[in-house]
Amino acid sequence: MNIICNGTQLSEALTRVIKALPVKKTIPILEGVKLSAYGNTLTLTATDTELAIQKTINADVKIEGEALVPGKLFGELIKKLSSEEQIEISFADDQNVVIKYMDSVTSIKAMKLRDYPPIQEFEYDVEFAMLQKDLKDMIIKTIFSAATDDVRPVLKGCLLELDGEEARCVALDGYRLAVAKKKLEMAIPYTSAIVPAKNLSEIYKLLEEDEEAAHISVCQKKIAVDLKHTKIISNLLSGSYMKYQSSIPTNFETTITISKDMLENCLERAYVMSRFEKSNLVKLDVKEGKLTISTNSEFGDINEVIAVFTEGKEVQMLFNSKFILDCLKVIDDEYVKIKFSTPTSPSVIVPVDGEKFLYMVLPLRNFSR
Amino acid sequence: MNIICNGTQLSEALTRVIKALPVKKTIPILEGVKLSAYGNTLTLTATDTELAIQKTINADVKIEGEALVPGKLFGELIKKLSSEEQIEISFADDQNVVIKYMDSVTSIKAMKLRDYPPIQEFEYDVEFAMLQKDLKDMIIKTIFSAATDDVRPVLKGCLLELDGEEARCVALDGYRLAVAKKKLEMAIPYTSAIVPAKNLSEIYKLLEEDEEAAHISVCQKKIAVDLKHTKIISNLLSGSYMKYQSSIPTNFETTITISKDMLENCLERAYVMSRFEKSNLVKLDVKEGKLTISTNSEFGDINEVIAVFTEGKEVQMLFNSKFILDCLKVIDDEYVKIKFSTPTSPSVIVPVDGEKFLYMVLPLRNFSR
Repeated sequence: MNIICNGTQLSEALTRVIKALPVKKTIPILEGVKLSAYGNTLTLTATDTELAIQKTINADVKIEGEALVPGKLFGELIKKLSSEEQIEISFADDQNVVIKYMDSVTSIKAMKLRDYPPIQEFEYDVEFAMLQKDLKDMIIKTIFSAATDDVRPVLKGCLLELDGEEARCVALDGYRLAVAKKKLEMAIPYTSAIVPAKNLSEIYKLLEEDEEAAHISVCQKKIAVDLKHTKIISNLLSGSYMKYQSSIPTNFETTITISKDMLENCLERAYVMSRFEKSNLVKLDVKEGKLTISTNSEFGDINEVIAVFTEGKEVQMLFNSKFILDCLKVIDDEYVKIKFSTPTSPSVIVPVDGEKFLYMVLPLRNFSR
Repeated sequence: MNIICNGTQLSEALTRVIKALPVKKTIPILEGVKLSAYGNTLTLTATDTELAIQKTINADVKIEGEALVPGKLFGELIKKLSSEEQIEISFADDQNVVIKYMDSVTSIKAMKLRDYPPIQEFEYDVEFAMLQKDLKDMIIKTIFSAATDDVRPVLKGCLLELDGEEARCVALDGYRLAVAKKKLEMAIPYTSAIVPAKNLSEIYKLLEEDEEAAHISVCQKKIAVDLKHTKIISNLLSGSYMKYQSSIPTNFETTITISKDMLENCLERAYVMSRFEKSNLVKLDVKEGKLTISTNSEFGDINEVIAVFTEGKEVQMLFNSKFILDCLKVIDDEYVKIKFSTPTSPSVIVPVDGEKFLYMVLPLRNFSR
């Protein structure tokens, strides 16, 4: 292998690819980044076997070939060469990858390429495109609700559902549920995939906030997200996801319309005061035209009043302030609706109009304690 | 106590003051921030007994008085109120500090004021002023060379020396030495003070990068830095500092003039390759007109050549790349001079002109190994 490429491009590509390197020390070979030089491109690949990230950049390929280098070391070294116009990379003696720039030479001991796991192309069952920014938005609006413990492994993933012209992303952990929806350009036969939240978070970071499309292919075991020069392949979680739709209540006794920012700021203060106890207990008290938020801990008390638009009965409920805060933090709307039924049933947070998101939060316990 | 103040001002002041709270849990009372309302100001004080930070803001004082609140909790709470125009703080019942904003009320359990250590004014031996940015620059250019271990406690401080019209800041840890100099507006009788690097680092963060002056007073045990509305008082380290000046060599066999950035970038790459071994060994080889920098580790080798202006003999020396890098990172000059004598004696890094800084670095070992 012998190529010449640009330092900035190589450094940027590496920064992205090494996100797929295993976080913990596992099998040594997985700590490598694979370089593949063919045609007029250099492709970089890293994988922890659950997630693979591939990035392709332009290169002047003199001799085609492949090499495997220690990923972290190579990444750090190239980062310090990111201002170089031209970097020559060659791998000729099966021992060392040689990097030349200006009058200087660096060589890195290569890793054994033949042991590296192949990134297989798969036969997809469904393929569709959506705007990168739409996919990004669906992920950020739901991922925080995925379970972090191992009680039900399937809940450590987010459910991606394609249903006609609608794409949905769903996450739930038994205490709360998040659903975000986007419209698709064309109708897709019903498809679902459970993507590990950990991998979805890496996909999120690679998506751009612009009008570019992401091409997504799904088969039973894998999902691939293709972003022009970047390809991400993630394993899917097996098992069946919860029938979440039936758990969302449809009848409510009380609905309030409230300024998102005012509620968020107020709950943040309540959280500061209550965060020393595990349940972050906060009391919401809805009376005609106002919401009173209160909390008390061994350090002090908070009592705040926010003017709201109320429909229905008065209600008092206890929540974990963090669960409501997590939702509010990712909502961009100026106002939201919160719907309550009985003090022991879940409440939901929805937009003032439409159905682009829905959050369901379980109350902490019966208020009559 | 009863006052009304501005949320942004209070929040900003608190953010600064709480830097003096103890990092580790020590005496509970020290976790408090003291509020003192007198005249038309509110003064906030925090101290870990080694360092005290006081910040004064304007306040509409209805009832003068003092209160002690849990610093971290109060700071976080006020941060979430930083957009409030008006915050009313009162302390009437000896139990709770009550904070009112808009229609809301928060109360925090107060701490026992009578147990809080007094911040005593001291009789200064010398008092002088220098630009905040000059003091800031002297600190950043030297503090990294202070010792971090306890072998010689006095070396965990930086030596501040005032000598006629010159102020000097010195730090050394037995492997390297840093000296930075600034001109003073007026001559000061010789004074020296050893300021703990930990505290100097907090002083650094409070200094502004502008033309404002810092008023500094020193006595035998303390240094006070007065920045208009912020006052910082630090204990000094007792004991005598090393006679550093005699350890700086004055005769050199070889001098090179080199681009600071090129050397820094090159050493950073060498550091990436050598950082797995403790000594970060790098070889500097000076021949007529060029410096070759090389390192080899179990992961690979680096060989870089930089064009330099050389005076004197050829020389080969071994260094810890980190020790040279630390100096280069804080130098703003385009070119620097490096002076070498024998392979076992220290080398120095100085500006091309003048004496505004001097770094001395010990070589790692005799090159003839």
